[in-house]
Amino acid sequence: MADKLTPRSEDYSKWYNEIVQRAELADYSPVRGSMVIRPYGYALWENVQAGLDRRFKATGHQNAYFPLFIPMSFLQKEKEHVEGFAPELAVVTHAGGEQLEEPLVVRPTSETIIGYMYAQWVKSYRDLPILINLWNNVVRWELRTRLFLRTAEFLWQEGHTAHATAEEAEAETRRMLDVYTDFAVNDAAIPVIPGRKSESEKFAGAVRSYTIEAMMGDKKALQSGTSHFFGQNFAKAFEIKFLGKNNELEFVWTTSWGLSTRMIGGIIMVHGDDQGLKLPPKLAPIQAIIVPIFKNDADQSKVMPVVESVRKQLSDSIRVKVDDREETPGFKFNDWEMRGVPLRIEVGPKEVDTGTVVLARRDLPGMEGRSFVPRVGMVEAVRSSLATIQSDMLKCATEFRDANTHEPKSYDEFKAIVEDGFARAWWCGDRQCEAEIKEETKATTRCIPLEQPGGSGVCIHCGKPAQEEAIFAKAY
Amino acid sequence: MADKLTPRSEDYSKWYNEIVQRAELADYSPVRGSMVIRPYGYALWENVQAGLDRRFKATGHQNAYFPLFIPMSFLQKEKEHVEGFAPELAVVTHAGGEQLEEPLVVRPTSETIIGYMYAQWVKSYRDLPILINLWNNVVRWELRTRLFLRTAEFLWQEGHTAHATAEEAEAETRRMLDVYTDFAVNDAAIPVIPGRKSESEKFAGAVRSYTIEAMMGDKKALQSGTSHFFGQNFAKAFEIKFLGKNNELEFVWTTSWGLSTRMIGGIIMVHGDDQGLKLPPKLAPIQAIIVPIFKNDADQSKVMPVVESVRKQLSDSIRVKVDDREETPGFKFNDWEMRGVPLRIEVGPKEVDTGTVVLARRDLPGMEGRSFVPRVGMVEAVRSSLATIQSDMLKCATEFRDANTHEPKSYDEFKAIVEDGFARAWWCGDRQCEAEIKEETKATTRCIPLEQPGGSGVCIHCGKPAQEEAIFAKAY
Repeated sequence: MADKLTPRSEDYSKWYNEIVQRAELADYSPVRGSMVIRPYGYALWENVQAGLDRRFKATGHQNAYFPLFIPMSFLQKEKEHVEGFAPELAVVTHAGGEQLEEPLVVRPTSETIIGYMYAQWVKSYRDLPILINLWNNVVRWELRTRLFLRTAEFLWQEGHTAHATAEEAEAETRRMLDVYTDFAVNDAAIPVIPGRKSESEKFAGAVRSYTIEAMMGDKKALQSGTSHFFGQNFAKAFEIKFLGKNNELEFVWTTSWGLSTRMIGGIIMVHGDDQGLKLPPKLAPIQAIIVPIFKNDADQSKVMPVVESVRKQLSDSIRVKVDDREETPGFKFNDWEMRGVPLRIEVGPKEVDTGTVVLARRDLPGMEGRSFVPRVGMVEAVRSSLATIQSDMLKCATEFRDANTHEPKSYDEFKAIVEDGFARAWWCGDRQCEAEIKEETKATTRCIPLEQPGGSGVCIHCGKPAQEEAIFAKAY
Repeated sequence: MADKLTPRSEDYSKWYNEIVQRAELADYSPVRGSMVIRPYGYALWENVQAGLDRRFKATGHQNAYFPLFIPMSFLQKEKEHVEGFAPELAVVTHAGGEQLEEPLVVRPTSETIIGYMYAQWVKSYRDLPILINLWNNVVRWELRTRLFLRTAEFLWQEGHTAHATAEEAEAETRRMLDVYTDFAVNDAAIPVIPGRKSESEKFAGAVRSYTIEAMMGDKKALQSGTSHFFGQNFAKAFEIKFLGKNNELEFVWTTSWGLSTRMIGGIIMVHGDDQGLKLPPKLAPIQAIIVPIFKNDADQSKVMPVVESVRKQLSDSIRVKVDDREETPGFKFNDWEMRGVPLRIEVGPKEVDTGTVVLARRDLPGMEGRSFVPRVGMVEAVRSSLATIQSDMLKCATEFRDANTHEPKSYDEFKAIVEDGFARAWWCGDRQCEAEIKEETKATTRCIPLEQPGGSGVCIHCGKPAQEEAIFAKAY
């Protein structure tokens, strides 16, 4: 911990890895590509879970659990699905000391086994919709991995719903995209662009995929949550049929939507700076850290009872902690800045005498973020400061994103823009055109934003007529 | 749903399976031995989790996540551990389209990979204790499986701690046994006997294992949670060393403790009856179900606004739901009895006129459990009724357990007792004696209770001197 963090501007990737490890969010595990999520990182994930779970339940969803293992034959029932996932599968061939008759896949995602079960459960339109979410672990054998961003095993939620009509299923797909957008913007303080994935970027087996795309601190994009409309693809593969009101057997319409521990990588990369992590108050495991300041025993006896009283006052409504380690205040300041705690509360002999505390904001440098607050009425001041930090962090990230998003007039301009930001441009929607752009610039279509200017234009690459604008960027 | 449930007394095993499926707690999956936990069962599990998680955090533990896959070589580092788990392992041999150099085991429990990581993290006595808990899924390839009770994959929590001294580690092991006891008794309304496992029944790799043992409705025992003191076994296998205050390198002392979805099987079997499930209010996903009662449209318009007002009044402090399905009240009564909802609230035209509601307790038959309560002050009456149900369920289970626990005077008496209950008897502690009892009676030592009468006696089987009493029973 003695060394200074590698500056973000010097080596973004190194900076990221150092933060993850020094803030004790996660660690490398002895199994290639798998990570250990340490208590501080897991507490952050628990807050992500709570923020999402509350929204899922408010929109009528229930949690459930489906098996980790899926028979290999299930994956093969939906052609595009198996093509997409086959290269990344981990396969159990032996169990209980014997070779299995049929190999079992460790779930990369659960559409297939859920399709099988929904086919048993759904009989009539009265059984619909089914609105289920799972919190679990999945495995996709990735070759190049990064803590949180791309790991062979990751934690996520996967929602799986079945509906009587295409309209209902499409509405669900969009509703859950809205839930992700709301969570990202209001809890994670990450401005995201909700949009549709191009044909080549959509989920294996989906009719339409939607995504929320965020700009990281190095101006690359991170796909942060996705929501898929499957039409009747999985319903037909698994024979999920229901007796409609008209007394005829019909296939259901299904959706799925997922958000993973990758979001934590996004939070680090959007908000972090050269001092370390910077957590949005709504998700921070510790919202305020109280640092007692004293130089001798007399001051310590004077300060500590006030520190305890401050902690007690705050602990009902704030996630607060006292740092009573035997270290210098300077060490503690640096340590909690590294760990991204939004607010530091200092209590020294002077504060005790004047009946105040010092509030120091993590998101503002030095004196700019410091204020003296009377202990009377302090709870309100702390809450208000946390709310301001939350909204300022969103504002800051939005300004950065907007300052680095451009609308190219020519393909040459386009190429320059995607070197260092997002390009928003008219695009023909053609798969071949998209592949050429990727080949030439390494930028991909991140999404076709839901918000469109209207009218039509000319494709930025091939010059053919274009009905929609797309966001292009290099991506994680 | 039309058929009546198989009576508990007629075929306990069939009764159990029917409840699990009809109450929609869980379903069989297409993967042998794995189960699907349906929303109602999962909501019950979420309440179990919340009850335990709160207690874990109150005793200073933090949650974290460790990888699903463990290198085969890790398991082999602790001799007894690998011997115990080898026959039950599921093994990943291929991933990403290639054969792995070293097979990966799907975790049956995480001592080994955690031992490896703790060895990286622990440097000095200042890093101790480590108090970490995981909520995850594990796989043990069982041949004979039962929904919740014994499944190839199950959900659980596993706590793993490391300490500077043996005394601290032993105290932690016992503290967590107390936490399990407190949860079982006060939340699940299951009286349990906390005790030590015999040498042959202890966890593979443990110095001492503790357990809470409960009596099911068929008078068989269920091991419902275990807590293990490992001494320095895993510390030595994984070289978890720390620099002590005396500046010398020492091995840490570790513990682990776990409670699984098996607890749900216990809740079903302890409390359930011929009408179905009977859930303790503290864990019930729905604590009170409101059933509107009307025969015509006029009554419906009269009743429904009151039903909604009752729901609203209760919903702040009670998990409450209105059953507004187009079914008869009789159907609904049976359905919610099957699902074990502790309290039914009936609102019909008569209740509207008299400003009352009917409360009907799930745990008391017919008129005995019915009372009329004024709507004014109803919230308090409902809360009080739920508290009474909670304590009466514990009382009922305790009386049943005690009425079926006997102290045999002879081995012949012993044999008769374990045919249909628990035997509490002096036991010599000898492994061979224990094996003979098991061979002859199918009863095993469930535990050596922490509470002992003191003094000494004569072994119920071999007649040798005995220092402790043990509980013997047939077990799940």
